[in-house]
Amino acid sequence: MISATPPPRGFPVAEYEARLTRCQARMAEAGLSALLLTTEPEVRYFSGFLTQFWQSPTRPWFLVVPASGKPVAVIPEIGGPVMARTWVEDIRTWPAPDPRDDGIGLLAATLKEIAGSGDIGLPMGPESHLRLPLAAFDALRKDLPGNAIRDASPLIVSLRQVKSPAEIAKIGHICAVASAAFAQAPSLFASGQPLIEAFRSFKRTLLAAGADDVPYLVGGAGPDGYVDVISPPTDVPLRDGDILMLDTGGMFDGYFCDFDRNWAIGRASEKAKAAHRTLHAATDAALAIAKPGTRCRELFATMHRVIAEAGGVSEAGSVGRYGHGLGMQLTEWPSHAAWDETVLEPGMVLTLEPSMTYASALEGAGRLMVHEENLVVTEDSPVLLTTRAAPELPVIG
Amino acid sequence: MISATPPPRGFPVAEYEARLTRCQARMAEAGLSALLLTTEPEVRYFSGFLTQFWQSPTRPWFLVVPASGKPVAVIPEIGGPVMARTWVEDIRTWPAPDPRDDGIGLLAATLKEIAGSGDIGLPMGPESHLRLPLAAFDALRKDLPGNAIRDASPLIVSLRQVKSPAEIAKIGHICAVASAAFAQAPSLFASGQPLIEAFRSFKRTLLAAGADDVPYLVGGAGPDGYVDVISPPTDVPLRDGDILMLDTGGMFDGYFCDFDRNWAIGRASEKAKAAHRTLHAATDAALAIAKPGTRCRELFATMHRVIAEAGGVSEAGSVGRYGHGLGMQLTEWPSHAAWDETVLEPGMVLTLEPSMTYASALEGAGRLMVHEENLVVTEDSPVLLTTRAAPELPVIG
Repeated sequence: MISATPPPRGFPVAEYEARLTRCQARMAEAGLSALLLTTEPEVRYFSGFLTQFWQSPTRPWFLVVPASGKPVAVIPEIGGPVMARTWVEDIRTWPAPDPRDDGIGLLAATLKEIAGSGDIGLPMGPESHLRLPLAAFDALRKDLPGNAIRDASPLIVSLRQVKSPAEIAKIGHICAVASAAFAQAPSLFASGQPLIEAFRSFKRTLLAAGADDVPYLVGGAGPDGYVDVISPPTDVPLRDGDILMLDTGGMFDGYFCDFDRNWAIGRASEKAKAAHRTLHAATDAALAIAKPGTRCRELFATMHRVIAEAGGVSEAGSVGRYGHGLGMQLTEWPSHAAWDETVLEPGMVLTLEPSMTYASALEGAGRLMVHEENLVVTEDSPVLLTTRAAPELPVIG
Repeated sequence: MISATPPPRGFPVAEYEARLTRCQARMAEAGLSALLLTTEPEVRYFSGFLTQFWQSPTRPWFLVVPASGKPVAVIPEIGGPVMARTWVEDIRTWPAPDPRDDGIGLLAATLKEIAGSGDIGLPMGPESHLRLPLAAFDALRKDLPGNAIRDASPLIVSLRQVKSPAEIAKIGHICAVASAAFAQAPSLFASGQPLIEAFRSFKRTLLAAGADDVPYLVGGAGPDGYVDVISPPTDVPLRDGDILMLDTGGMFDGYFCDFDRNWAIGRASEKAKAAHRTLHAATDAALAIAKPGTRCRELFATMHRVIAEAGGVSEAGSVGRYGHGLGMQLTEWPSHAAWDETVLEPGMVLTLEPSMTYASALEGAGRLMVHEENLVVTEDSPVLLTTRAAPELPVIG
């Protein structure tokens, strides 16, 4: 069990040293002389640089990982003092924003110094993106005619999808905080309450329970079930007979939880109750096999089978998968999908997130139900980071 | 004055029609047969598609604006029902995530159908980025050998940096909400309170006051002044003689405020009080000239002059500017910087954000002070969207 006591903030330098050592070993295998990183989680993973300033899209930020030695930061001047408090020592800044040259000249010179004429790795694969203007990136490529720039996504994925004990403690803590907030549902949600107020109440509760932030809260509600799980809330009031679902990505010290809970307001139909039991059984079946050696496609197939055998209509088509990795991002590799051959390893933090539709006796389309838990893979059985939902759909309000 | 009554959520279809008409006129001038948009604000600007699901980096989303006719959405299947509730009619989906082809084939076919062999516009300039994997974008370029892909940033900037009355109402509302939350400072912050608890308390207050979310809250505190404005809060308690600053990007219906407030805890030094008066005078001077025809570099020069004449040390070097646009993003074009020739137009929503350092009688480096207000440019004098800070640094706690 994960305690609700907050783990220490930040990481000891040894954590960053271990990340760097593993990274540089893989860079050597891949023949990379430098790694260029541009997104918030990539820069933070190797430096510890944590700030909400990334919300501003104005300025690009860069971290260069050399083949040996510590990472080099190439960042806007405004970030210099904060970066100086991390373990990074070589910090090169420019007065940003400067649309004439927003750090590209400085970055090109740094890459030439570090990589020589060697190959440069850059994450280019699934779930990555380049956080700088495309025109600036094209200028960088022109400044580095002698360097091949190659995809470093497999390298980054192999590092980041296995979490350290200190990372797991942070994710576990925010899962415990959100579990405590979800446990207060009977006093937070009631018939007559506009859905937008239910969202607001839950966000405030999650903050009070110890979340640093609530970057993600989606959900749905409707008579005998909901049909949409990604819209912002409306001011339509909850009614007796509604099913309410909230799915939250709370954050502690830069790490996410990502799970949901369902409740019936006042009363629940047999069909809704059965759907909840089916999804609970699907996660049970996945938990039973979520061990080293199992492939993500097997987790998918196992959950799919439970839903099909119960006569449910799987929603894997539209959702695309039944769960994923999580950590510094709300969703990370791997995916529990028919195409994902990733083999589970100890330290992977994963969601199990089966979904299905069921027919309602009321009018309208089929209702959707989603259910989600977070776990960490160990040498033996997985450890749940969330307080397990009850098999029976809880009735509140 | 902006009322605290929430404006209606969403926009009438006429708003999207007007955006599209202006866009297509500029596309015709630029000789563009289609516009390809990949980021959350770009897709939302033309479609109204609003969801926190963008927090997940896993799936790319695309909107194509044709030379005539309504936008076409090319999006993951999970978003289909929500997009169908917008005014967009032509919605093409694929079961994402699919690392073998995450929508690129569908997008390429759509672009060929819409653009023929014409030029395609894509935002590539300052403050833009490409929200899809670089390898996927390279594949798209290979799929479209007959189409030139050209920078559409100037076009997008010219549209988005002038806000409609309905957009201004949303920004004005969240500014009013945050002003009301800031007004509660005397009962929220006190000596002995850990800074992280001050942040938490303010976030909960902002939500209770009517913010949908608080995606951005940074700040600082320290004896006779703070030295860093982008770090996450520590658990160091506030002390008598500290200066506390909070800078928030609250959100209402997808639109941001972005402004800060300073307080002295218990008592303030003459130097801190003087710095606050100087920055207040700098914003006064900028407000006096923030009219159509004024250039952003003139706003910068005016604020710079006030600070210099008061003997303050300008922080424009490290911050890079004294304010910027805001709207669907926390920071948008233009910049109040020496290099920005943008001419103010009615409907532009701007921050004024001068900053300076001052010497403290206490030990340590110079202290930083920042001060920020939000305004809308009109035909005549600007209208403040924030409740103006008092010239005198308020003492609380």
